[in-house]
Formats: sequence, C-alpha cells, structure tokens
Amino acid sequence: MDNRTKFTLEEKDIPQAWYNIQADLPSPLPPVMSPQTGKPAGPADFAPLFPMSLIMQEVSQERYIEIPEPVRDVYKLWRPTTLFRAYRLEKMLQTPARIYYKFEGSSPAGSHKPNTAVAQAYYNKAEGTKRIATETGAGQWGSALSMACMFFGIELKVYMVKVSYNQKPYRRIMMETWGAKCVPSPSPDTKIGRDILAKDPDNNGSLGLAISEAVEDTVTTPNTKYSLGSVLNHVLMHQTVIGLESKKQMEMAGFYPDIIIGCIGGGSNFGGMAMPFVKDKIEKKNNPQIIAVEPASCPTVTKGPYAYDYGDEAGVAPIVKMYTLGHSFMPPPVHAGGLRYHGMSPIISHLVKLGLIEARAVPQLATFEAGVMFARSEGFVSAPETNHAIRVAIDEAIKCRESGQAKSILIAHSGHGHFDMAAYEQYLSGKLTDYEYPEDKVKEALASLPKISE
Amino acid sequence: MDNRTKFTLEEKDIPQAWYNIQADLPSPLPPVMSPQTGKPAGPADFAPLFPMSLIMQEVSQERYIEIPEPVRDVYKLWRPTTLFRAYRLEKMLQTPARIYYKFEGSSPAGSHKPNTAVAQAYYNKAEGTKRIATETGAGQWGSALSMACMFFGIELKVYMVKVSYNQKPYRRIMMETWGAKCVPSPSPDTKIGRDILAKDPDNNGSLGLAISEAVEDTVTTPNTKYSLGSVLNHVLMHQTVIGLESKKQMEMAGFYPDIIIGCIGGGSNFGGMAMPFVKDKIEKKNNPQIIAVEPASCPTVTKGPYAYDYGDEAGVAPIVKMYTLGHSFMPPPVHAGGLRYHGMSPIISHLVKLGLIEARAVPQLATFEAGVMFARSEGFVSAPETNHAIRVAIDEAIKCRESGQAKSILIAHSGHGHFDMAAYEQYLSGKLTDYEYPEDKVKEALASLPKISE
Repeated sequence: MDNRTKFTLEEKDIPQAWYNIQADLPSPLPPVMSPQTGKPAGPADFAPLFPMSLIMQEVSQERYIEIPEPVRDVYKLWRPTTLFRAYRLEKMLQTPARIYYKFEGSSPAGSHKPNTAVAQAYYNKAEGTKRIATETGAGQWGSALSMACMFFGIELKVYMVKVSYNQKPYRRIMMETWGAKCVPSPSPDTKIGRDILAKDPDNNGSLGLAISEAVEDTVTTPNTKYSLGSVLNHVLMHQTVIGLESKKQMEMAGFYPDIIIGCIGGGSNFGGMAMPFVKDKIEKKNNPQIIAVEPASCPTVTKGPYAYDYGDEAGVAPIVKMYTLGHSFMPPPVHAGGLRYHGMSPIISHLVKLGLIEARAVPQLATFEAGVMFARSEGFVSAPETNHAIRVAIDEAIKCRESGQAKSILIAHSGHGHFDMAAYEQYLSGKLTDYEYPEDKVKEALASLPKISE
Repeated sequence: MDNRTKFTLEEKDIPQAWYNIQADLPSPLPPVMSPQTGKPAGPADFAPLFPMSLIMQEVSQERYIEIPEPVRDVYKLWRPTTLFRAYRLEKMLQTPARIYYKFEGSSPAGSHKPNTAVAQAYYNKAEGTKRIATETGAGQWGSALSMACMFFGIELKVYMVKVSYNQKPYRRIMMETWGAKCVPSPSPDTKIGRDILAKDPDNNGSLGLAISEAVEDTVTTPNTKYSLGSVLNHVLMHQTVIGLESKKQMEMAGFYPDIIIGCIGGGSNFGGMAMPFVKDKIEKKNNPQIIAVEPASCPTVTKGPYAYDYGDEAGVAPIVKMYTLGHSFMPPPVHAGGLRYHGMSPIISHLVKLGLIEARAVPQLATFEAGVMFARSEGFVSAPETNHAIRVAIDEAIKCRESGQAKSILIAHSGHGHFDMAAYEQYLSGKLTDYEYPEDKVKEALASLPKISE
C-alpha cells in the first residue's frame, strides 16, 4: 500500500483513447427514435444538430476511439487530474474504510465538463461549424463549452436555466470572460421561449426547456450546431478519461475500489468514472459496487419508469429509452442545478436495468451536511452536485466503521463549489430546506410520454 | 528544452526546508522599533502577539529552517503546485519569449496564502494558542487562515476590510464554511473600530485599520494570538516553497528565467517566488531581472519614501523601515484588494534599496485587459492581484517580439479569480475606471510618520 495523499500522473499518461462501452454491453442499447416519425432514427436525422464525426461516435461499436492530438493538447491544462486519499475525512469518520476522490475541480472551468466540451468544439471546428447553441443548468456546462469554443474560435450562445442564472450570476460572467453570450431560459430569443413566457412570465426554467430553445436556435440559424453536455453516448465516452486515469491511480495506491460513487444529473461525470470499471464487471474480472446518486427532489432513476421519452420539454429532441420523470417535469429549485434533468443517459439507464450499477436518492440537507464535513476535513469546498456523491461515500464509510470492514471507496469528485457559496450560506444559516418529491406533478408529466412501439 | 505544458513534481519534492534570505543579505535589515518606546524591539516585545517560534523565525539568521512534518502533510493537499508553460498566451502575443507561470490557485483556498497560514496555525497550536485574530483585505488571507485553523483546531476571528466584505460576500461564506467568524472592518467589536465608526459610519476600511482591530482584539482577549498574512520576515520565508519548487521546475523546462514577475501588496507571494532567485543574484551565479508589480492607485514602492512607519493605522503594531504611503493612507476601492496596503514588507523594501529587485506600477484597466487576455488564451481566470503580474509579463513579452529576443519569463501566479467575477463584469461592461493617485492625501498621510532616530 502506498501512503501518498496524492496520486499524480504525468502529461504522457493522459489516455490516448476514450473507452466506448457499447463494444462490451451484454445487450445493445435500444434504438433512438426520431421525434418526427416515432421510428428508429439514423445518422441523417441528427445531421442538422451535430457534426457527423460525433454522430458516428454516438453509434460506434469500436471499443476504443483515439483522442485527437489537439484535444489531448488542451487536456494538458488540467489533465491528468489528481486522485486524493481522503485521510482527514477517514479520521473524522473514524472509519477503517479507505476513501479516495478523483478531483475534476482543477480544470479552468472548475468541473469535469471540459473533458467533452473540448472534444465537441474540436470536431465541430474540423467540420466547419462557425457557431454553437447550447443550454446549461448550474452553469458548469455553459462555462466549460465557453472555454472550449474560445480555444477553437467558435461563437457560442448559451441558454441558462433561469433559476440558476439568478442564483449564480458569476457563472454567466465567467462565460462572458471567455467570450460567449448567455441568456436566461425561457428567453424571448426563441419561439418556444416566447410562448412559455407569454403563459408564465415567472417560469423558473428547466434543463428540458433550455434544450428545446438551444435546438430551435440551432435549426433556425445558419452555420450553427447544437451541443449537449451530458446524456448522449459520445458525451459519456469523452468522460471516460476520468475512469481510465482513476484505474491507473488506484493501481498506484495498491487497491481496487470496492465501491465507486458519483452523482447523476444527465450521467456524464458518473458514467465517465464508472464505465471502465463496469467493463471489469462485465468481463467478471472484478465486482465493485457502483452507485449513482441523484437528488430526492428529482429522483429519475429511483422513482421514474424506464420508458421512451423526449430529451427535451418541447419534444423537438430525439426520443430515447431512459429512466424519466416525464419531459414536462418541472423540478423544484434545489441548489444542485446540474442534477435537475427529467431524464437519464440511455447508457446509465441500460446499465441500471442490467443490474451492473445501482441508484440511490438523497435529500438536499444531507448533501450539504456532507459537503461541510468534507470542507472541514479535506479543505476543498465542493459543488452541491458533488456533495451527493460525498454523502453516500460518508454513509458507506460509516457502515464500514460499524462492520469493521476496510473497504476502498472511490468518489467521482466532479467539481468545486466556488460559484455555489450562496447555497452554502443558506445551509449554514439554517435557511435551506428539503423539497418534497411532487408525486402529482410527476404523474401528470408521465401522462405525456410519447407512444412508441418497440 | 522540454516541450511539456505542465511541469509537475511529486509529493516527495515538497521542499524540506524554507529558505531564509536573512542569512545571505549583503547588509542586515534595519531594526524593528517598538511602538511604545520608539527604540529597537526585542523578542519579548512581540510575545503578546506571536508564538515564540515565529518570533525566533522573524529574526533568525539560519539559511534554511526545516518545515515541520505536520505542515508538509497539509501542504500535500495542493503542493507541489504546477508550473505551466503558457504556449497559448505566447501564440496570442506572437512573441519569441517563453512564458511560464507557477500556479498557486489550486490550493483549497485558491491562492498562495495557505503556505504560511498552515505554518502559523501549526506553531500556534504547538504553543497552546486557542484562538487567533487576524485581518484580511481581499479575503484570500482570511480564507486561507480559516482553513489552516480548521486543520489544527484553533478558533478564528477575521476583520475584513469593509469594501472587500461588500464586494466579495462569498469569501466570507467560505471562511464560515471552514468554521471561522468574519466581521467587516471597521467593526463595533473593538475600541478602534467604534471610534472610527463614530466619526465616519461609511468608512470603507483599510488593511492598516483592520490590522489595528485584530491587534487590539489579540491583546484584550485571553489565549489569543495575532497572525499576519504578509509583510513579516517569517511570512515571506514560508512562501519560499513557491520559489524553491519553481527553480526545480525551470530546470526541468531547461531554462533559467531571465525575468521573474510577481504582484506586491504586502510582498509575500512575490517574495516567496523571488528570494531563492535573489540568492543566485547575491552569489553572482545568475542575474535575472526581478520585477515587483504594484497598482498605480497604491504605489507604495514606486512613489513612497523608504522610511520608518507603523504597520497599522492606529499605531499599535511595530514600527518598521519600509516603503510607505503613510499608515493613515486610505487607498481607493480598487478591485485588487490584496494590493491596497500602505506599506511594504521590510525585506522587499530592503532588496529594492539594494538594487536586487525593481518595482513597477500599473493602472487597473490595463491589468484587467491582461487578465482577460490570459483567460482567453490559457483558460484560467486569475485574481485581480495576479493580473498585475500578468500585465507586466505581457508587456515584457511584447518587448521581446519587438527586439526578437527569446527571453524566459516566469510569473508568480498567486491565485484564481473565482470570487472576483463582479470585478470582471465591471471591466467587461466598460464600467471599470482607473483611479488617480491622490497626491494630496498621501502628502497628508506622510506627515504623520513616526520620528525615529536611526
């Protein structure tokens, strides 16, 4: 066993290729359906939205896809990221468990999101895209893509969910510092946005709605493509640099993780960490417990059905089979803005269905309690999203204390909380509350699922 | 030459000892005077304020002082820090210069300040201190010491300059997340604060005034010591981990820096980077140009006299020989809150006087222009203080473009700007202005220098 606090890799250790789990799935992913026809969609259906190289990655069955050199070159600004041993948290919990966290908060944008943003900007540039439209929830995706588009000279327009736009003004300024344009969603800049605002001027927005606006912007503006920061297969694949590096670093530490934990909104941070370990599970080389953590206020996987649904509010995005709360679900304004999506990545959904990973829902207050414990032991102040993973890691470490087992726990630490201090203030001053899961509203939203015959 | 973007060191490469430049100075530092007697002060005079081990470091003539293992152990959370080659900034500037930056923004508190905060908390704990009082300008020092006191179980009270307290509420919340108490200065919690507030309720505060409050708190509260985040000899010495690591990393890169640049407020970040290189200059092993950069709105070294002055507003702190604008100088509310101190570290002042380093003043708008150029090339959004160093690095790199010289430029990058986005917004929206150097007010402030016979 290696007693280091940090396990660091060299630039040359940045993975040469992403890992594509589609090559190893015991059964293939259900087909994606066109929102126009309700029938299986082909590459041509996605061409208005994405560059062809990304569409090909979306359906690729190749096990490894080479990372282009210009992408690895930008990765060098923050990758390989550090794997930490959380000695101080272990001590605070008096647990025999070994807790490790893979820290993605050191990227200039502060989260794991640039791992795919840079790749997407690169492929768009290579195919001549001049402008990109996207949405952002908490602002982590919007800032990551702003930075990526800046590196590759692409214009960017970001539709930011209004509740986050108001909660986190500094995320918008960060996007503008990198040269992007950011508006609150619903916005008057699209027909979908104008229609919603006419009916409900105080609408707080949702990720599904912001996606609708970005997709409308894309198909109605010349030379523009759309970019999504999570959910899709190619996005999760780009994030496998997290898991691939972590595997190497856990080897350096001398332990294979018994439990792997990440938070899920669309699923990319968790998926990027988990999939290289799921491979071992499929190949029966190892059998780690892999836990995806979602907010109790938006319990997509733990309470939603596994069904075909639109990826967006207005039903203009592709229809995919996934765990969903219904595309018209309007989540409560909890602080983990990155975890408020109504659906879940098809890959993550499929892996849950196959029993290869499990999901758990945690309430907001418990996640902030965990975040403050982490800050008061490890020093780092984490994003509210990340606090969900930390919460479950602490729960598992406490179980180890009770059982006496020295398990190795690996946390996907998705980013810092420097733009979330207002949420910490609410928590510290006792003003933060837990949100009830609105059963009625979900029932209502689920009634509008598209009818798809499989 | 090594083409890597990042030069990373291992945990074992964290320096074993700090470098104490007092052992190598061509002439000794002028004595420090007691504010009570106006005569040279001895260790006993400082005993009410600092633990004896730090007082001994303050006057030590030992060349190297061993870093205690518990301090190195906390350093491991972010040290050794990364040295970056700024390839993208070089390309943007079309310069033949090689630009490197030593990035201290990856510490949990986001700046270089924890390097000394952790050391000071450790020595205080070792001597039984239960509580510490301190001041903070921009909030970087206050948050660093909050984290350090949390690691060693010491209670902390922070007096934060009011203009920064209002500009940067999130810094306060960060301190509270780590368990500290933070109040705006001038505060009603001290006699000095109450007196000022009675005369001028809208007083914006100054670092000198906040120091007075923290010192008063210290001498009037049992089991309390005082801690300063810059200026003093032991503080600068703790920061030499920056320069010692950088020397190793520049060797890895294959170049000795021709120009070394850092921003100065109290002088600790710059001093920590510069002193190990000044050693080479004293020993005539090498002759780098070493530039300390200050704001034109608080031009201590470039326009102030080298004279004995109080370290604080109220004249309760020791009297030191330094460049000063007068201890009653009230700086304009510029955004580089960490650079608004009326005086300058005695060591830095002495090195300027000896001609071993030089100082340069830059206006606020030019520093933000440089910060945006840096963000749009290197990705990282820097603190307004750091932007001062980046500004001069860019100026020097442009000179290289004009002269065709391929100089190696090393920037002390003191921290990120995640809590300074309001300042970026002002700059990007054209609302930021330059502040005139208030000649009259400085003349007035200089009239109150203490009379010290050398």
